[in-house]
Amino acid sequence: MTDQPARPDGRATDQLRPLTITTGLQSYAEGSADITMGETRVLCSASISDDVPRWLRESGSGWITGEYSMLPRATRERTDREAARGKQKGRTVEIQRLIGRSLRAAVDLDHLGGVSITLDCDVLQADGGTRTASISGAWVALAVGLRTAAEREIIRTLPELTQIAAVSVGIVDGEPRLDLCYDEDAGAETDMNVVMSGDGRLIEVQGTAEGVPFSRQELTDMLDLAAAGCEQLFAAQRDAVAAA
Amino acid sequence: MTDQPARPDGRATDQLRPLTITTGLQSYAEGSADITMGETRVLCSASISDDVPRWLRESGSGWITGEYSMLPRATRERTDREAARGKQKGRTVEIQRLIGRSLRAAVDLDHLGGVSITLDCDVLQADGGTRTASISGAWVALAVGLRTAAEREIIRTLPELTQIAAVSVGIVDGEPRLDLCYDEDAGAETDMNVVMSGDGRLIEVQGTAEGVPFSRQELTDMLDLAAAGCEQLFAAQRDAVAAA
Amino acid sequence: MTDQPARPDGRATDQLRPLTITTGLQSYAEGSADITMGETRVLCSASISDDVPRWLRESGSGWITGEYSMLPRATRERTDREAARGKQKGRTVEIQRLIGRSLRAAVDLDHLGGVSITLDCDVLQADGGTRTASISGAWVALAVGLRTAAEREIIRTLPELTQIAAVSVGIVDGEPRLDLCYDEDAGAETDMNVVMSGDGRLIEVQGTAEGVPFSRQELTDMLDLAAAGCEQLFAAQRDAVAAA
Amino acid sequence: MTDQPARPDGRATDQLRPLTITTGLQSYAEGSADITMGETRVLCSASISDDVPRWLRESGSGWITGEYSMLPRATRERTDREAARGKQKGRTVEIQRLIGRSLRAAVDLDHLGGVSITLDCDVLQADGGTRTASISGAWVALAVGLRTAAEREIIRTLPELTQIAAVSVGIVDGEPRLDLCYDEDAGAETDMNVVMSGDGRLIEVQGTAEGVPFSRQELTDMLDLAAAGCEQLFAAQRDAVAAA
Amino acid sequence: MTDQPARPDGRATDQLRPLTITTGLQSYAEGSADITMGETRVLCSASISDDVPRWLRESGSGWITGEYSMLPRATRERTDREAARGKQKGRTVEIQRLIGRSLRAAVDLDHLGGVSITLDCDVLQADGGTRTASISGAWVALAVGLRTAAEREIIRTLPELTQIAAVSVGIVDGEPRLDLCYDEDAGAETDMNVVMSGDGRLIEVQGTAEGVPFSRQELTDMLDLAAAGCEQLFAAQRDAVAAA
Amino acid sequence: MTDQPARPDGRATDQLRPLTITTGLQSYAEGSADITMGETRVLCSASISDDVPRWLRESGSGWITGEYSMLPRATRERTDREAARGKQKGRTVEIQRLIGRSLRAAVDLDHLGGVSITLDCDVLQADGGTRTASISGAWVALAVGLRTAAEREIIRTLPELTQIAAVSVGIVDGEPRLDLCYDEDAGAETDMNVVMSGDGRLIEVQGTAEGVPFSRQELTDMLDLAAAGCEQLFAAQRDAVAAA
Repeated sequence: MTDQPARPDGRATDQLRPLTITTGLQSYAEGSADITMGETRVLCSASISDDVPRWLRESGSGWITGEYSMLPRATRERTDREAARGKQKGRTVEIQRLIGRSLRAAVDLDHLGGVSITLDCDVLQADGGTRTASISGAWVALAVGLRTAAEREIIRTLPELTQIAAVSVGIVDGEPRLDLCYDEDAGAETDMNVVMSGDGRLIEVQGTAEGVPFSRQELTDMLDLAAAGCEQLFAAQRDAVAAA
Repeated sequence: MTDQPARPDGRATDQLRPLTITTGLQSYAEGSADITMGETRVLCSASISDDVPRWLRESGSGWITGEYSMLPRATRERTDREAARGKQKGRTVEIQRLIGRSLRAAVDLDHLGGVSITLDCDVLQADGGTRTASISGAWVALAVGLRTAAEREIIRTLPELTQIAAVSVGIVDGEPRLDLCYDEDAGAETDMNVVMSGDGRLIEVQGTAEGVPFSRQELTDMLDLAAAGCEQLFAAQRDAVAAA
Repeated sequence: MTDQPARPDGRATDQLRPLTITTGLQSYAEGSADITMGETRVLCSASISDDVPRWLRESGSGWITGEYSMLPRATRERTDREAARGKQKGRTVEIQRLIGRSLRAAVDLDHLGGVSITLDCDVLQADGGTRTASISGAWVALAVGLRTAAEREIIRTLPELTQIAAVSVGIVDGEPRLDLCYDEDAGAETDMNVVMSGDGRLIEVQGTAEGVPFSRQELTDMLDLAAAGCEQLFAAQRDAVAAA
Repeated sequence: MTDQPARPDGRATDQLRPLTITTGLQSYAEGSADITMGETRVLCSASISDDVPRWLRESGSGWITGEYSMLPRATRERTDREAARGKQKGRTVEIQRLIGRSLRAAVDLDHLGGVSITLDCDVLQADGGTRTASISGAWVALAVGLRTAAEREIIRTLPELTQIAAVSVGIVDGEPRLDLCYDEDAGAETDMNVVMSGDGRLIEVQGTAEGVPFSRQELTDMLDLAAAGCEQLFAAQRDAVAAA
Repeated sequence: MTDQPARPDGRATDQLRPLTITTGLQSYAEGSADITMGETRVLCSASISDDVPRWLRESGSGWITGEYSMLPRATRERTDREAARGKQKGRTVEIQRLIGRSLRAAVDLDHLGGVSITLDCDVLQADGGTRTASISGAWVALAVGLRTAAEREIIRTLPELTQIAAVSVGIVDGEPRLDLCYDEDAGAETDMNVVMSGDGRLIEVQGTAEGVPFSRQELTDMLDLAAAGCEQLFAAQRDAVAAA
Repeated sequence: MTDQPARPDGRATDQLRPLTITTGLQSYAEGSADITMGETRVLCSASISDDVPRWLRESGSGWITGEYSMLPRATRERTDREAARGKQKGRTVEIQRLIGRSLRAAVDLDHLGGVSITLDCDVLQADGGTRTASISGAWVALAVGLRTAAEREIIRTLPELTQIAAVSVGIVDGEPRLDLCYDEDAGAETDMNVVMSGDGRLIEVQGTAEGVPFSRQELTDMLDLAAAGCEQLFAAQRDAVAAA
C-alpha cells in the first residue's frame, strides 16, 4: 500500500480514520457501544428479551435482528425523519438486513437460550461508513449485552462468540483505499463493504461499481485492505469489551 | 418549600436534578445542544433552511417547527421504533406540537428573514421530563443556530430572542414537587408541564390530574416551583450559548 | 366581569353561547348525546363492550377511550377526510387523548366491571370549542350509557360517577373571555381549555400563549371564568341525563 | 305487487320506509341535505370549489366526486373508525365510486363552469340502504349547492340538472321487495341497487346473487319495484329543494 | 343481432374476440389457468389452504376470495405498481370483491371441507374486459384446483361445482355490443359486466351509464348478448378443464 | 470443475439450468423479455418515458430504475400480495435497488437523451435465482426498448450499450456451484450474486455467508463459476435481441 497524500484528510490509502469505541452511554441497555471513526459516530445498543419471533418459538432457538436509523441532522443537509414520512427508506431496510445477517454470524443461534436480541444502531453523525461502523459497534454491544444477560441469569450459559467487524473499501481516482469518508465515497468508482470474522474469513462482501466496472485484481486489492483494517477494529473491540 | 427526604434521589421538593447543557456535538447543524437533567439526556439541533411551508411563502414570514423522537433503548424496556411501525405515536405528535409552539414564542416570525427552522430533539436516555428538557435544549440550539445563520449570511439581521425554558412539576404523595424523575412521574397525582419566558410569564401550562383532581391552591404552588426551576434553567442556557 | 359589547355575537365576557344537550339521536348506542353551543354541534356516543385492551385483561379493571372527528363540511372551508388521507392529524390525536383522559377521571376504572367504553365525538358543525363541547357531551353519553349497561346487566352495579365538564376561555383584545367562538379563537392572545370536576377542582388545564405570554393574574382571571361556565354546563348535563 | 304482511316492519312489498328530506343542517356548506328512510339517516353536503383535479384543468370541464363514511356508532355494534385504521374499507371505496359516478350523470360536466364539487355523505344511523339514501340525498345537496354557487357567482350560469334518485330492491324469501331494511338485506337471496334518472331510465344497476342466482323475470320484477320507489323519491327531492 | 362492420377489429356485434384457455403455466399452484380474449391476457391461479378466516373457523365452512392486479406494463402507458404506492386503487378493490363474490357462487361453501381458496388474477396484458376474463379464467383454476385438492386429499370429497363465466357488454354508438375491447369501452355510452351461471341465470349484473342513461329495452338487449357470449365461454372452460 | 452427481437435478457444478429468452410477450412495452432458467420464469419490460425524476430535470441526463415483484403463486406456498399488505418487503426493495443499479451500468446516463426507463421484472414462477434472472432479462428488454425508442424517435441516437448479465453461485455441501435452484439455495453455506459486464469485469458482487464464513479461495472459485455462466447468458441475450 502506498501513502500518497491525495486523500481529503491526508491519510495513507491503508489507514483507518481515528477510531474509538466506548461502552455504557445508554445505561438502561443490556449492552451499549458508542463508536466513532473520524467524524462518523454511531450509538449501538443490545436489547435482550425472552420473546422470540413466532416462527422460532417451538425450536428453542434464539434470534438476532438489527435496526438502523440516522438522526435527522447527522448529515450535512438535514434528512427527513423516517417516522414522519411513515416509511423506512430502501437504503435503511437494506442496511438493517445487513446488520442483522452479519451479527447472526457471531453466535450459534441454537445456543442463545431462546432469547431475542435487537441491535439498535443510531447514527449521531454521518461522514461515510455508517453501516460498517454500525456492525463493528453492534458486535461490542452484543458481547457486553450477553455478559449482562448471563449475570442477570436471562441466559444460563454464555454462548461462544465469533468476533465480527466491518469496514468499507473502494476505488477512488483509480486507487484502492481503506475506510472511505463521505467525500471519497461520493466520488468512488467502486464502493465495497466487507464484513469479516476474527479468523480472517468473509461474512459478507458487497461491492458495487458506480459507473466503471472493477477487475478481479481490484477486488483482490480491496479485500487485502479490508483484512488489514479489520485487524485494527478487532483489537479496538476487544479493548472496549474488556474495559466495560 | 420544604426539603423533606421523601424523593427517590433525596432531592428537596424545589430542587432540579443535576443540569448540564453543552453545544456542538452535532457539528454539521447550524446549532446543536446536548442537555442532561439527571439521567435524562436529549440531543437537540437547529437546522436552518431558506425553504418555508407553502402557505407562508408569500408572506415573507419565517417558520419554526419541532420534531421529537426517542432512541429505542432510551427507555428501561426497549420501545419499538416509530419508523418501523410506520406511524408516530400520539404522544410523539403531541410533544412535537408543544415544542414547535413553545419555540415559536421565542422570536417574532416576521423578523426571521423568511427562513424555516427545524428543531430536532432526539432523546438518548429517558428518565422523565424529556419534553421539557427538549424545549430548554432546543432554545439553546436555536440561539446558536441563529447566530451561525447570521454569520453565514443566511439571515441578514439577528432577530430579537425571547428566552424560553420548560420544566415539569407535579403533586406526588400530596406534595408539590419540581422536576419529576420517571418514578415520581409514574406515581404522580398531578403532572404539569410549564413553559415560561425569561420575564417570568407563561407560554404554556399543561396540567393533568391522574386520578385525583387538583385544587386552585395546588396549581399556584406548582407554578411557584416551576418559576424557580426555570430561573436556574435560564442561567444554564445563557452560559451554554455564551460558551458556544 | 364586564359586559362590554366587543364580542362578535354581542355576548358578555362571562356569558356562554346558547347551550342545548339532548339524548338518543343515535338510538343503537348505549348512550348518545347531541350537544350544541351556539353554532358548534357535536354528536357523542358511548359504546360499551366487554372487551378491554390486552394489558388490562388480567387486572379486572375497565377502560375508557375517546375518539374525535369532524365531518368534512363541519368547517367553513371543506376539510379533507382523515380516512381518505390515511392518517389522523396531530390535532385529532391530541384531542382524542384529552377526551379519553378527561372522562377516565369520571369514574374509578376498577369499579367499571371490566368493560371497555368508547366515547365517539363527531363534530357536525364547528364554530370553536369543539374539544370542550365533546368532553361535556361525552359525559352525558357516558352517564346514560352506564345506566343502560346496568339495565341490560352488562355491568352488575352502577359505579359512582364524578361529573365532568369543559369549556374554553382566552384572552382576546387584552380581555379574558369565556367560551370563544371560532373568530375569537383565531385572534386570541391566549387560548385555554379547562376541564373541571363537579366540585370545582381541576382535571386538566391547557393554556397556550399565541404570540404574547400571559401573566399569572390573567391565568387566575381565565380560571374564574371557566369555573362559572362549568357551573352552567353541569346543570345542563344533569337535566339531559334526567330527561333521557 | 302484493301487500302480504311478512316484512319485519309490516310494509307492503312495494312500500318505501317513511321518508323525509330536509336541508340546511350543515349551514356552512353550499348545499346540505339530511335524509331519513326509516331508521337510516344520512347527512349529505355539497362543497363547491374552483379547484379541479389536475387532469381536468386545461379542459375547462368541472368535476363531481363522492365521499362516504359511517359514524362508528351508526351501526348496532360499533364499527372501527376508518381514520384510526388508516385505511378505507373496500366497501367504502366501492360506495364512494358509485356515489360519484351516479351524481356525475346529473349534470353535463362541461357546463359546470370549471368548478369541483365534493358530495360528502356521512351516515348517522344505518339500517340498510345507506348507499342509495346517500345518492338520493346527495342530489338534493347538489341542487341546492349549485343554486347557492350561482347566487354567490362562483358559477356564472346554473347548468341543467337531471334528477337522480336511488333505491335498493331485492329477493327475500323468494319475493321481490322494495327498500330493504338491514334485517331483510342480511337475509336476501338477491340484493340490487338501482339508480334512475327522472325520466325513468337507468343510470346504474348493481344486482348481486347471494347464494342463489336470479332469473331474468326476477330482474324485471325488481326493476319495476325500483321504478315505483324512485317516483316517490323524486317527489320528495323536489319538495326539499323547493323548500330550501 | 346485426353484423355491421363498425367495430375496430371488424367483429360482428354479437361476436367474442378470439378466446383461448390453457392450464398449468404456474405449476406450483393447485390450479392455474391462462386466459386470452384478443389482446387481453390474464393468469389465474387457485391456492388451496386449510387455513380459513377467523370468523369462519368454528362454522366448518370454507371460503373463497379473489385478488386482482395488473402488471405495470399490461397497459398502453405504464401504470404505477400498487405495491410501490402502498395502496390498492379503488378500481382494484372493487374488482377483487366482484371476483370473490362471483366465484363463491360456484360452490356451496359448507361443502368445501373447511378449506380456504385464493383466486389470484394477474393481468399480463389489458385490452378491455380484464375483470370478466379474470372471472372466467378463475373458474377454470378453481375447478382444476379442487380436483388437485381431492387427489392430494386436502379435501375429502369434490363439492358440486356450478359453472360460472362472465363477459362485458355495452352500448357503443347507440348499438349493443358483446365483449368490448379497450377502445370501445373507453367510448361506450353504457358499460355492463354480466356474470352468469351455467343454467343461464344471473350471478351479478353491473351496468353503468357513462353520460347517457340507458333504457329498459337496451338492458334487455345487452343481457341477450351476454347470455350468448357466456355460452361460448362455458364451452371453452369445459374443454380446458377436461384437457388439464 | 467436477461434474459429481450430487445436485438435485443432476447438473454439473458448473452447469446452468436450461435457459431461454424470448421477446415481445408484452406487446405494448417498448421492450419486453421473457426469461426462463429451469423452473424460474421472469417477465421483464422496459417502459421509456420522457419524464425524468425532478432532481435530474435540469441536467439533461436520463435515468433507469428497476421494479420487482413476484406473482403470489410464483412460489410453492402462496405468498401474500405486497399491494394488499400496503408495503413492499425489505427483500423486494433490496432487489429493486440491485436491478436499477446494475442496469444503470449498461449505458452512460448522459447519453440517454433525457428519458426515464423503468425496468419491470415480474416473477411468474420462482425456483431460485429470480433476481439474477431479472437482471439478465431486463438487459434484453432494455436493449430492445432503446431500439424501439430510437425508431419512434423518442430518443435521437441509440446510446452505446454495455452488455450486463447476472448469475447466482454458492457453496453447497462444501462445493462451489453455479446457478443454484431453490432447494440448493435454501441449504447453501454461502450464497452469492454476481453481476458482470460483457468484458468480464464486475458490476456487483454480493456474497453472504449463511452460518459458515467463506475463505478467499472459495470466493475466487465462485467468481470463476460466475464468469463462465455469464458467458452463456451473454450469448443467449445477443441471440434474443437479434431475433426481436
